[in-house]
Amino acid sequence: MTIEISAFAWVPEFAQGHVRDLRPRWALIEAGLAYRVHLLKAGENRSADYLRWQPFGQVPAYRDDEVQLFESGAILLHIANKSRVLEPRDWQDAANMQSWVLAALNSVEPMVADLTNPPIFNVGEDWVAGARKAAEQAVEGRLSALAVWLADRDWLTGRFSVADIVMATVLRDLGDEPVLQRFPVVEAYRDRCLARPAFQKALAAQMAVFAENAPA
Amino acid sequence: MTIEISAFAWVPEFAQGHVRDLRPRWALIEAGLAYRVHLLKAGENRSADYLRWQPFGQVPAYRDDEVQLFESGAILLHIANKSRVLEPRDWQDAANMQSWVLAALNSVEPMVADLTNPPIFNVGEDWVAGARKAAEQAVEGRLSALAVWLADRDWLTGRFSVADIVMATVLRDLGDEPVLQRFPVVEAYRDRCLARPAFQKALAAQMAVFAENAPA
Repeated sequence: MTIEISAFAWVPEFAQGHVRDLRPRWALIEAGLAYRVHLLKAGENRSADYLRWQPFGQVPAYRDDEVQLFESGAILLHIANKSRVLEPRDWQDAANMQSWVLAALNSVEPMVADLTNPPIFNVGEDWVAGARKAAEQAVEGRLSALAVWLADRDWLTGRFSVADIVMATVLRDLGDEPVLQRFPVVEAYRDRCLARPAFQKALAAQMAVFAENAPA
Repeated sequence: MTIEISAFAWVPEFAQGHVRDLRPRWALIEAGLAYRVHLLKAGENRSADYLRWQPFGQVPAYRDDEVQLFESGAILLHIANKSRVLEPRDWQDAANMQSWVLAALNSVEPMVADLTNPPIFNVGEDWVAGARKAAEQAVEGRLSALAVWLADRDWLTGRFSVADIVMATVLRDLGDEPVLQRFPVVEAYRDRCLARPAFQKALAAQMAVFAENAPA
């Protein structure tokens, strides 16, 4: 079985270590599945060929001997079912994993992005400071619910799963935002996820590519 | 097989017809699967019981004789696999469906929400007008990619699927935003989805609940 994921050859420093191919890298390392990387040089993500694989020109996209997919959440659900380590134990376990992957990507990440993206992508625009309060309140609501859920759980679904990979990378984007520090249960959960050797290996693998392909 | 979804007994007028139980209603009607509705009166979505079913207190949540799930995207992927009408024809078809459900919810809906939500939920806040331009540009980028994908396709994955249900409801939230009108291929796709009898029945079913439970 040959597994291939797409990734950018290089991105600006603020994005390094945060590009979404981190998620399948982490999952594949947890699963013990070898993979190779289809590197995209500047502009190649807009080629007609690549858009047939990833219609929005984003990374990651994925393919193996049987199928191709895009969107990190879809890719991780697929990887989970190919791996004895990550595969759900029964139908309810699969349902929990699926629910939490979608929750991380639709009920948590958009709120986190509204808090953390404007100061990066809209520097100098006069609305950014004013938007912060509502964005922080939205994140607080979601972290508050997460804290209740995680109060007596190490992982979202009972044992470590791809849902934790997605949620941990979402929470990691909060960096040292004060709102996260108000929920020590959630912060400890994030740290527990990120302490896993497979995450550290995935992060190093992404960073190594950028180091090799840094502009002269 | 008993299928049950959760829904609010009543919501304010601006949200009526847009609450997310619309998605599983639509999918279940397309699939010809009977369902009953677990109605939540004011505040019941914050009960400990309900939070075990839907940790964020949102709707919809879903259960049948075998499993329970939450998040509309996760629920729709589950419904697709229970239905002869909506089930994927092969592994690649399943992968496409999964990719596009995730794309609608993580690569399109958050941008649409950033454009359409602030004027509703942050009325009178001084940043709302200033944020509009960046939000519209983000939506434009995604619609532009969608227009390329849909140029020679009636449906996202070759035949109508739950991915179209999710994407159409996301696009519907754009209402008559000028940015959508700049992509007639996408607008026609949305209208093609929403013209399906199952959508009209799902919408009528949601609205009937609000009419029955309107505050005195």
